[in-house]
Amino acid sequence: MRLSNLFTRTLKEAPADEVAKNAQLLIRAGFVYKEMAGAYAYLPLGLKVLENIKQIVREEMNAIHSNELIMTSLQRKEIWEKTGRWDDEVVDIWFKTKLKDETEVGLGWSHEEAIVEMLKQYVRSYKDLPISLYQFQTKMRNELRAKSGIMRGREFVMKDMYSLHASAEDLENYYNQAIEAYKRIYSRLGIGDDTYVTFASGGAFTKFSHEFQTITDAGEDVIYLHREKNIAINEEVIDDAVKELGISREELEPIKTAEVGNIFNFGTTKTDSMGLKFADQNDQQASIYMGSYGIGITRVMGVIAEKMSDDKGLIWPENIAPAKVYLVRIGDSENVVKHADELYQALEKQGIDVLYDDRDVRPGQKFADAELMGIPYRVTISERLEEAGQIELVTRGDGALRQLTQDELIAILN
Amino acid sequence: MRLSNLFTRTLKEAPADEVAKNAQLLIRAGFVYKEMAGAYAYLPLGLKVLENIKQIVREEMNAIHSNELIMTSLQRKEIWEKTGRWDDEVVDIWFKTKLKDETEVGLGWSHEEAIVEMLKQYVRSYKDLPISLYQFQTKMRNELRAKSGIMRGREFVMKDMYSLHASAEDLENYYNQAIEAYKRIYSRLGIGDDTYVTFASGGAFTKFSHEFQTITDAGEDVIYLHREKNIAINEEVIDDAVKELGISREELEPIKTAEVGNIFNFGTTKTDSMGLKFADQNDQQASIYMGSYGIGITRVMGVIAEKMSDDKGLIWPENIAPAKVYLVRIGDSENVVKHADELYQALEKQGIDVLYDDRDVRPGQKFADAELMGIPYRVTISERLEEAGQIELVTRGDGALRQLTQDELIAILN
Repeated sequence: MRLSNLFTRTLKEAPADEVAKNAQLLIRAGFVYKEMAGAYAYLPLGLKVLENIKQIVREEMNAIHSNELIMTSLQRKEIWEKTGRWDDEVVDIWFKTKLKDETEVGLGWSHEEAIVEMLKQYVRSYKDLPISLYQFQTKMRNELRAKSGIMRGREFVMKDMYSLHASAEDLENYYNQAIEAYKRIYSRLGIGDDTYVTFASGGAFTKFSHEFQTITDAGEDVIYLHREKNIAINEEVIDDAVKELGISREELEPIKTAEVGNIFNFGTTKTDSMGLKFADQNDQQASIYMGSYGIGITRVMGVIAEKMSDDKGLIWPENIAPAKVYLVRIGDSENVVKHADELYQALEKQGIDVLYDDRDVRPGQKFADAELMGIPYRVTISERLEEAGQIELVTRGDGALRQLTQDELIAILN
Repeated sequence: MRLSNLFTRTLKEAPADEVAKNAQLLIRAGFVYKEMAGAYAYLPLGLKVLENIKQIVREEMNAIHSNELIMTSLQRKEIWEKTGRWDDEVVDIWFKTKLKDETEVGLGWSHEEAIVEMLKQYVRSYKDLPISLYQFQTKMRNELRAKSGIMRGREFVMKDMYSLHASAEDLENYYNQAIEAYKRIYSRLGIGDDTYVTFASGGAFTKFSHEFQTITDAGEDVIYLHREKNIAINEEVIDDAVKELGISREELEPIKTAEVGNIFNFGTTKTDSMGLKFADQNDQQASIYMGSYGIGITRVMGVIAEKMSDDKGLIWPENIAPAKVYLVRIGDSENVVKHADELYQALEKQGIDVLYDDRDVRPGQKFADAELMGIPYRVTISERLEEAGQIELVTRGDGALRQLTQDELIAILN
């Protein structure tokens, strides 16, 4: 994309009321716009990052045979009353509103109940199980405070997956597959090394659930880490977990983290309370085992912005960057324009996404914008470089500068 | 996709309260699920159709250099008060709710005001114009009645595009480009021949706006058509339009249609009332011309379901079908299973989307499901056909049946 055709621009300053580093950077770089606390619009470059993250998650969910769908934001009271979760005393983050005829409706902050209710149409017998399905849904949560930028929103994108099984063993088997899929996701997102499968509080059916916690100073959680044994425990279950796992508290290192995913074994509690059963091989009605698997998509984008940034701006991992190359054209001599236009077209033709800075602004601003936006490779064409038959390549991650021929450049970028 | 891995199934009947043909068919085929009147979940096959439609629209919007973004559903009262459209007396379809601190917020039913407000951050001078941007947004509209299935929702997907210009001429030029882009979209969606650019009521700035109206008995509008001159006029402006266009009312044929898109010239009214200006070449503050361009994505899917269906079910145009081929395997002899598995893999490898009916159900049900789901090509492999070295191909549109060798089949499908 030519920057002259992009309506956003980088900003000198984020809004004064924006205290989170992730949002400050993303706003300054023109990736997001703050509509209100906890509700951000995703502008073209931000939307690209978001879609790149979603696509990685989608591929890994499809790989474990989950079906993508999209539920509604509008939620019926009757369905949530079945599990007692309509009550504002029980769930204190509902947004509720009313239809014209005064019927109360909620805005989905989670979709477990709605999914189980919908599945009553499709689950009859053991032949229909197992089932796995997921969605990318805009969740609405009426948070009292929303000061963590896109890491905690009143309106945010979540991937929520649910699986249903005929037996506890089948669920456990799938649950473990999901853990592996999640590991692949965080690795592809560039935060695999700093993300830990963490024991957390479990609920009615299992002693523990599993969270995925990423090390960051911007985190709201503390986990206790045994690096050698690769064990991580959420503060909330530390007493139970050390007992269970046979490790001593002194071996553990407390560290600040942000939750980027969680998986949960409901056993049969959720489906039982909603009245979803199946006919087993003896044609007897039996309970269904259910797991739930979440990833906060916008949240993980915020965590990456927090972790992968420096005083110059964002540093996107190549897999999710809004473009691979930021092409800086210095000067507007016929020669330079022609060469930059040609290189832009050549790279795009090879499927390499390029932000082509064809604007009439100072070189210093172009360089600063490339850094603030965090595009992995900055490529510069200028009259001076032309004369030497060279193109300049700077990698955002380490700042390394190389002068290359066009063939050398293309070999590196491919 | 293997049908054994898809959790939905076809249903004998739609819910008794579902009166719209489009929703009845889509529910029976397992494409959508009715959460409540006017709010439908999109199940895997329905989501595929939706995404296919979005992708066609996206390509055509990008082709006229529009930037994709996504605004928030949560809307601030102050912004909409600037144009008087917060008032429920003025806009009677708001869903409103409250933050914890009692701040009233709305759920976006349109995004003009929010977009103009956001653009204040980016528009300074004539150099920043023109701008075009669009989104696929889940709009929330508190409709009194919602009886048209996915054609009129309380929660539905809309593509809304907005363009801003330094002069009336520049807007008019872009407006005409958008009309051509819309024509290409409806043509690619398979309803081009039955969709008319229609004069409709204009508002403050222009005498007419333009609607795209598609002929269907399920429509809520009536247009007057001059087939020879390719002129269409919405009933609401018939008197003005015949005068303006110099045609007589008797030449016009009234016909029932559904609105599938609309484009609107705001002139400078919207931007003026929101206080968005730009510095012109003489550094004088000047008004901005704005156009808006909508397509109801879920609505157009409903219109296609209404128009392209028969007593056996849906008949998707190839461009938007959830799969190109429905592969029926009859019997489970080793030979048949092996051949069907291989053909499935061969077609998918060539990028042809296949629904592979590998379920243990009667052939009659497989045929009926293929027809109800409306997949363009049904391919059958059976023991009897195997013996003759043949594969059966049936086209959903005309029911034509052919027996082919595998090479002949693949040549046709490619």
